Amino acid sequence: MIQKIDHLGIAVRSLAETIPYYEKALGLHCHGTEEVESQGVKTAFFEAGDVHIELLEPTNPESPIAKFLDKNGEGIHHIAFATDDIKGQLTKASDEGIRLINQEPFEGAANKMVAFLHPKSTHGVLTELCMPKE
Amino acid sequence: MIQKIDHLGIAVRSLAETIPYYEKALGLHCHGTEEVESQGVKTAFFEAGDVHIELLEPTNPESPIAKFLDKNGEGIHHIAFATDDIKGQLTKASDEGIRLINQEPFEGAANKMVAFLHPKSTHGVLTELCMPKE
Repeated sequence: MIQKIDHLGIAVRSLAETIPYYEKALGLHCHGTEEVESQGVKTAFFEAGDVHIELLEPTNPESPIAKFLDKNGEGIHHIAFATDDIKGQLTKASDEGIRLINQEPFEGAANKMVAFLHPKSTHGVLTELCMPKE
Repeated sequence: MIQKIDHLGIAVRSLAETIPYYEKALGLHCHGTEEVESQGVKTAFFEAGDVHIELLEPTNPESPIAKFLDKNGEGIHHIAFATDDIKGQLTKASDEGIRLINQEPFEGAANKMVAFLHPKSTHGVLTELCMPKE
């Protein structure tokens, strides 16, 4: 089952230019940054209650985030739901006719297994499912 | 201070067509619907942990949600942060050069006082601050 929203991914052109908004104007705490080479992004993490906000800056023009920014500009890129059964959740979505971007979970950032549902079948919301790696 | 993410607002063309995705494919529970005439929307509420997901369907073509859908299609419309001091939080944002859509909080849905920050100064994210009405 889905337990909660794990994080929101927000596409930005520059972490350096965006972090001050979250820190100073909203008063949230940036508790780290990480580069995820396989996804071509640098991320900065904030906490709001028990939900993480992940700012995503592309590190190369082929990064999915670079393409999102070219098409949409800065803004919310995806919602990630925490689940205790990622494979079961993918099967359930698929059985309901939802298009899976990933048929199988793969290893994402922060030691998690992740998989995405396609926004064309989720009413416009790129949706990630994630679960701590066993 | 900001306590947590209160809710995510998601613009959809039809509640009736979208609710089944959240209920059946994700397994979330729809715990109510409400019409907010002043905003020209019908909403359906889901819970994911302690964050609400609000689906927003426009009830007339002049609704801000109708305009959002015309421009962007379906997708995440805004993030709302819960605060214990909405006026202080607005002042803080304004002092940091953030453009306020609402200089003063106004009464929103679910018996809350709300105010919005302009996405042009928040790196593309329409941001709501909200607080239970006193």
